[in-house]
Amino acid sequence: MSTSNHVQNASPAKLLTYESINPHVKRVEYAVRGELAIRAEQIKDELSKGNSYNYDFDTVVNCNIGNPQQLKQKPITFFRQVASLTEYPDLLLPENRSQVEALYPIDAIERAQKLLKEIGSVGAYSHSQGIHYIRNNVAKFIEERDGYPANPNDIFLTQGASAGVQAVLQLIITNSNVGIMIPIPQYPLYTATLALYDAQPVPYYLNEEDDWGLDMSQLASSLSAGRFKGLDVRALVIINPGNPTGQCLTEHNMREIVEFCHSEHIILLADEVYQTNIYQPDERPFHSFKKVIRSMGKKYEQFELFSFHSVSKGMIGECGRRGGYYECTNIDSHVIEELYKMASVSLCPNVQGQIMVDLMVQPPKRGDYSYPSYQKELNEIYESLRRRSIKLSECFNQLESVTCNNAQGSMYLFPQIRLPQKAIEAAHQAGKKPDEFYCLAMLNATGVCVVPGSGFGQKSGTWHFRSTFLPPEELLDGFCTKLQKFHNEFLEKYRD
Amino acid sequence: MSTSNHVQNASPAKLLTYESINPHVKRVEYAVRGELAIRAEQIKDELSKGNSYNYDFDTVVNCNIGNPQQLKQKPITFFRQVASLTEYPDLLLPENRSQVEALYPIDAIERAQKLLKEIGSVGAYSHSQGIHYIRNNVAKFIEERDGYPANPNDIFLTQGASAGVQAVLQLIITNSNVGIMIPIPQYPLYTATLALYDAQPVPYYLNEEDDWGLDMSQLASSLSAGRFKGLDVRALVIINPGNPTGQCLTEHNMREIVEFCHSEHIILLADEVYQTNIYQPDERPFHSFKKVIRSMGKKYEQFELFSFHSVSKGMIGECGRRGGYYECTNIDSHVIEELYKMASVSLCPNVQGQIMVDLMVQPPKRGDYSYPSYQKELNEIYESLRRRSIKLSECFNQLESVTCNNAQGSMYLFPQIRLPQKAIEAAHQAGKKPDEFYCLAMLNATGVCVVPGSGFGQKSGTWHFRSTFLPPEELLDGFCTKLQKFHNEFLEKYRD
Repeated sequence: MSTSNHVQNASPAKLLTYESINPHVKRVEYAVRGELAIRAEQIKDELSKGNSYNYDFDTVVNCNIGNPQQLKQKPITFFRQVASLTEYPDLLLPENRSQVEALYPIDAIERAQKLLKEIGSVGAYSHSQGIHYIRNNVAKFIEERDGYPANPNDIFLTQGASAGVQAVLQLIITNSNVGIMIPIPQYPLYTATLALYDAQPVPYYLNEEDDWGLDMSQLASSLSAGRFKGLDVRALVIINPGNPTGQCLTEHNMREIVEFCHSEHIILLADEVYQTNIYQPDERPFHSFKKVIRSMGKKYEQFELFSFHSVSKGMIGECGRRGGYYECTNIDSHVIEELYKMASVSLCPNVQGQIMVDLMVQPPKRGDYSYPSYQKELNEIYESLRRRSIKLSECFNQLESVTCNNAQGSMYLFPQIRLPQKAIEAAHQAGKKPDEFYCLAMLNATGVCVVPGSGFGQKSGTWHFRSTFLPPEELLDGFCTKLQKFHNEFLEKYRD
Repeated sequence: MSTSNHVQNASPAKLLTYESINPHVKRVEYAVRGELAIRAEQIKDELSKGNSYNYDFDTVVNCNIGNPQQLKQKPITFFRQVASLTEYPDLLLPENRSQVEALYPIDAIERAQKLLKEIGSVGAYSHSQGIHYIRNNVAKFIEERDGYPANPNDIFLTQGASAGVQAVLQLIITNSNVGIMIPIPQYPLYTATLALYDAQPVPYYLNEEDDWGLDMSQLASSLSAGRFKGLDVRALVIINPGNPTGQCLTEHNMREIVEFCHSEHIILLADEVYQTNIYQPDERPFHSFKKVIRSMGKKYEQFELFSFHSVSKGMIGECGRRGGYYECTNIDSHVIEELYKMASVSLCPNVQGQIMVDLMVQPPKRGDYSYPSYQKELNEIYESLRRRSIKLSECFNQLESVTCNNAQGSMYLFPQIRLPQKAIEAAHQAGKKPDEFYCLAMLNATGVCVVPGSGFGQKSGTWHFRSTFLPPEELLDGFCTKLQKFHNEFLEKYRD
């Protein structure tokens, strides 16, 4: 390495540069882990190195992502007991029985035995579509939930719902002229995936004034606009309960949506990952699209639907596990074969994720040893989530120039902030969108990380942010006080 | 649902049909889990229902896929102990200590404590690129392996190596005129991914007569042919040790490859998932491309490389876990940001897969309590794999009209069968490729499932199959006897 080589070999241009990579990848945006989240990581790093003198807080609270166990939600004990036993099958040997029974309840031991008998080893590739035994249990779960039959061969276990959504969209999108109807605001997985696969979003707007309700005239005019542009609109995405908006559809509204898709020849994709996160169960219970379609009689018996579910949400919150499933309803068998082939290229969803799906769809039942503790844990998480959703929406609604709908479901609030003109100008000068500017200021002042509304889409000229209501209850009061202080100072600073 | 509705609503055409889905998806082929594997599943099903009278065997042996734990390879005990403890953190509470210490060794307990301290919960989404602590350990592992530094920020943890390969190819492929050089025979992930992302394979042939060696003149003529077609050839894929071919490259050969890529302005993708499956360690040790490049001095210090590794192979065989990583060497920081963004859309690799990566790169060390048993398990698996590779290649070489190279590495043999003309004609009449026809006959006669060579690519007019050498040693003799009998009968039946 003599210096004489230096000039000759001076840093040749890279072959792979931002300019020379896949343009569709570049177009992808994913705000949930975007600039705000990266800045939050930096602050965490500084705090962990003891540089807290820069900040008025000593911890960063990630409200940018629905990640309950990151915010100290305890996992469901029974589920983890079973997972733990399946990892180390020697625990199930007779010679270890007495010690193991002191640590694990009998029904967790039996469940692990049953699972290992079906699976063999959690370290072996499973069937690409997911372990048949578990798909069978998913089918039973769907049947019990809906009162209509389900077929394990129509069910694909996946690495979280996102992987399922991407597999299905990849199949549906044939070329760049394909349009996919998505809600605005939406979960950015959808715009990201459409950008990646080079399809066109056909946005329909949820009605903030009507608790983020879905207005049929909006769907119709959105479709017309898409078709007017010459797009081949092939599918409609519904997120129910909504993300980031938290609304829960009425059965009546769902029937209208099905009729709309049927008459317009559009496939329905139902993202139902928040199906148990329902906080007004009497007024706004969850209905699956599968059930609604089946209840609509013969005319709709061939209606094509993909429904998605996950172990990451609900009261389970096993996000890091990457487990989920999707069900194909009335999907052509040749199409299912293609989905199977594509699943095979990725070999199989991770087996612990599949086991968690099994536990989600077959939790302890009344009479089982672990049922009382399971039920207690579930209820505590549920009641606490409901209380927190109300507390946080009250907190937001008390802020000057902020309005926030209550969460009917999901894990998020999506308050609107009416920003003063001076703040908007300051944002532009800083090269930021006004909501980004506000959220970044909030993060720097309070340590609370939320996601700007522009990451989800919002009506032009309105500004929002999405916040989970997942911080532990004992932190929420401090959280609200800090937020109030920041917000007042921000408004004061930029008051017109 | 009166019958009067029946005609009116008779089965309307499906919106989503084989004809109307993404044509790139349709072009994907993945033989490892193709027709043969599906037929094997059917036979298993029949056998499990007691219909064994149709078959001369009572179990199906899956040699179609490198899935050691499916074939009863025991997982590494220490790894599973740590995984088990991280699933159920209550085991680490002081009140459970004495019972837990009776079941788990002290170093597994300490390791689980350390991991949980860094991770929080295995049920929480981690950093999208993978847990920083684990990436740091991967970097240390690479440094120790190669003797050159590695940066945790250049490492992405993934759901197995396949997910990493797909992420990188997705980035590199900008349009359908991009060519990617791949070996023939190849692991079908590569052709599948190129079909999906609409890029063009630029095949180079491995030399069967030279132990499946890589001949530089082949690389050069392959590149010329690709460029002559007008393709923008951007990357070269090397699988080392080879899959399905089992060859292991010499350091000299690797330097030639690096020089070739450098002078031709091509990025190198090194699939090194079989790096510890080396059966002639003195003659053919494994060298990483990272190390070889670093050893080549200043001229190559900006050489762009992606290297892939996995927990699915080696002596670990934790396929169902879906864990792996890739390292970016000299990749532009803006490109890495894009890879990070894409990883974020999928949220994170599953955390148990990440933990297994940590265990792979930081196994028990000399002096640790579990070191002797870990080392013993590792050696037993390794020695057994080596014995099995020799036994099976001898078995294949004893078959009439079959020749088989020894495995220098990996988990596969890829014997060539010279099929009689009558068999080739019978295959055509059955609408099958001759190697598919042979393998299907083998499956039906013996219960042994292998993959036809046409699924990997082979020189025109030659026929092969890929078989893992993973069946347990005690089964191998029976396996060879059955195969011999089938093969003789097959040749007899179709003798010209």
